[in-house]
Amino acid sequence: MHSYVDYQSAKPVDPRVREVMLPYFHERFGNPSSLHGEGDEAAKVLEECRRTIASFINAEPDEIIFTSGATESNNLALIGYASRNREKGDHIIISEVEHISIHNIAKYLEKNGFKVSRLPVDQYGKINMKKLESRITPQTILISIGYASNEIGTIQPISEIGQLAREKGVTFHSDAVAAEGLIPLDVKRDHIDLLTLSSNDIYGPKGVGVLYMRKGMRLNPVIIGGGQERGLRSGTENIAGIVGMSKAVEIMQREMKEEVKRLAQYRDRFIKNILERIPKSHLNGHPTERLANNAHFRFEAIEGESLLLSLRDAGVSAATGSACSSKTLEPSHTLISTGLLHEEAHGSLEFTFGRFNKEEDVDRVIEVLPAIVDRLRKLSPLYKEEMPT
Amino acid sequence: MHSYVDYQSAKPVDPRVREVMLPYFHERFGNPSSLHGEGDEAAKVLEECRRTIASFINAEPDEIIFTSGATESNNLALIGYASRNREKGDHIIISEVEHISIHNIAKYLEKNGFKVSRLPVDQYGKINMKKLESRITPQTILISIGYASNEIGTIQPISEIGQLAREKGVTFHSDAVAAEGLIPLDVKRDHIDLLTLSSNDIYGPKGVGVLYMRKGMRLNPVIIGGGQERGLRSGTENIAGIVGMSKAVEIMQREMKEEVKRLAQYRDRFIKNILERIPKSHLNGHPTERLANNAHFRFEAIEGESLLLSLRDAGVSAATGSACSSKTLEPSHTLISTGLLHEEAHGSLEFTFGRFNKEEDVDRVIEVLPAIVDRLRKLSPLYKEEMPT
Repeated sequence: MHSYVDYQSAKPVDPRVREVMLPYFHERFGNPSSLHGEGDEAAKVLEECRRTIASFINAEPDEIIFTSGATESNNLALIGYASRNREKGDHIIISEVEHISIHNIAKYLEKNGFKVSRLPVDQYGKINMKKLESRITPQTILISIGYASNEIGTIQPISEIGQLAREKGVTFHSDAVAAEGLIPLDVKRDHIDLLTLSSNDIYGPKGVGVLYMRKGMRLNPVIIGGGQERGLRSGTENIAGIVGMSKAVEIMQREMKEEVKRLAQYRDRFIKNILERIPKSHLNGHPTERLANNAHFRFEAIEGESLLLSLRDAGVSAATGSACSSKTLEPSHTLISTGLLHEEAHGSLEFTFGRFNKEEDVDRVIEVLPAIVDRLRKLSPLYKEEMPT
Repeated sequence: MHSYVDYQSAKPVDPRVREVMLPYFHERFGNPSSLHGEGDEAAKVLEECRRTIASFINAEPDEIIFTSGATESNNLALIGYASRNREKGDHIIISEVEHISIHNIAKYLEKNGFKVSRLPVDQYGKINMKKLESRITPQTILISIGYASNEIGTIQPISEIGQLAREKGVTFHSDAVAAEGLIPLDVKRDHIDLLTLSSNDIYGPKGVGVLYMRKGMRLNPVIIGGGQERGLRSGTENIAGIVGMSKAVEIMQREMKEEVKRLAQYRDRFIKNILERIPKSHLNGHPTERLANNAHFRFEAIEGESLLLSLRDAGVSAATGSACSSKTLEPSHTLISTGLLHEEAHGSLEFTFGRFNKEEDVDRVIEVLPAIVDRLRKLSPLYKEEMPT
């Protein structure tokens, strides 16, 4: 038996999604810009997909821009907005627990003359609204705060941030990749101006994403060319991929409620059992305001990587943190921001459940993990059973 | 019967390509950055694909950067190179007959302080080596000239350009999208430093492309984030798409010679028949140095769009020019550059054959086109049968 519990790193495409994509590879392959039957069909499908995806977040179809994925959407949101609206101000606020793409884009903007504030978070990884408000200056043009952490699963007060930003006349971007499919999204309710979505994170194909852009927003393109997506994202449209993302949305809209309930049950049973069965284990992230599929622990006196390899031998695929930074030796910036020491961050492990997990996967990890932790601790010079927690 | 003869706008994915992609959607979905079995498998496949695609152009695997398509590759080549190498100079040379993405990127670079020379072409759309040489100054850092025109099919003297650029110490980029699969590519033979490839143009999936970057080149990324593709192109890798492109390359390497022979026969028979059967018709582009699949005509006293619509009613899908600009009312910049008047450019039509065409498609167009031209001319106030050609 093999248990994949690393859904934040990558998700299998739903077979129902793959099925509807198939004809768009060979039979319905047209370019939406062409003036013939194949082109018209592609143009029509493209607009249907735009409508479906808009309805998922309570947006209008012409507020949806297709991109090659969430990273590109984040680039378009931050670089596209900042470079186009520079005359309004030069200050941007992000949080310390953003996805690595936001952090690296922020560094790029600093090199190009913008000022970036990085909002600290509490021990659970949550931002503080008062602190956010105190950072807003007349020069602030953009706040970018992710809907929830892709690592520790903590959910941010998005509605409150949106309301504050709207009151202050500051544009609000949120990377919703970790939250989509787990939290109902509503850009109007939450006063969101720019929202990043990924296809794969709702079981659609990789290589497709969306940037929601509220009407009236002005952005510069990041990819320049033939003028597709109203000049905001050039390049021939990846219709098969877009059809896949649209189908993934459709399925999610129908099944999300049940799925989230099921995943939250897995998560709660898992967290309870792990904390009970493994001494000196701790939950990272917020105890209640966390994503339904996320369990993130630290185990004293063990290296996360050794744990990961032992789990791997036992047929369990998990993660030490964001896949994007898993091959560096740096500890997770998110965990450090919540106040963990480097060695505590290094002793952390992330489990994320998803659509194709079954009860048995949860049972399995509950069964194998305590013995692995015990064995590794016996080998660890750092661990003393009687040491205080 | 329906005949699609607009392969430059979009190509159906080869069913053999789709077949090998399938397991990478659901069963083999891992993130190459993950430290577990699924991740390792993805990382391994990614490197195999890099090797296959490198061999297609006589490059090394670590000179291949995966992107979301040719437009992005062109952005990375021009913006990435110019912004990174600004201290070497501020002058870039392109030709007047480049793809619209190159033209729009060039405008962006001009807005950002670079100087761009646009090399004129002769009546066939070919650049002149002496003129190119005369434009090179000590400030010239980059020459970007497409391998062949995606509109009129004219092939440029790429090897000569590469040799001149190498002698002058200027970096040479070529967009090979129109040529790939029709001309054997060899970056070493042709002294190419940066080369744009598209997946769909060799019957792979859309949403995938490559930038070849010769060892030693330095570029800034255009998409910033988690540091994939050695920091040059962030975002989770679209493995299914990359596997598809790699399979498309494999098939092309095996079948290209025969395919090109067959397409050139179609083209030659088609051009001969059209010019013979339709009075006052002319071939656009070079009579011999043209892509094996391309036939491009102008018909006096007719609008290309009316022709296109009539062909459409007769079950033939063709194009008035580049799909990227087909929905604007502007005449093709490529045709204007070859010296055509606006009305001549507007009276032009492009036919591009491809892998799934049969002899019958050629016969079909030869059969229906003369009657359509004749009918439209009878309705045209511009046309006089006795007018001199």
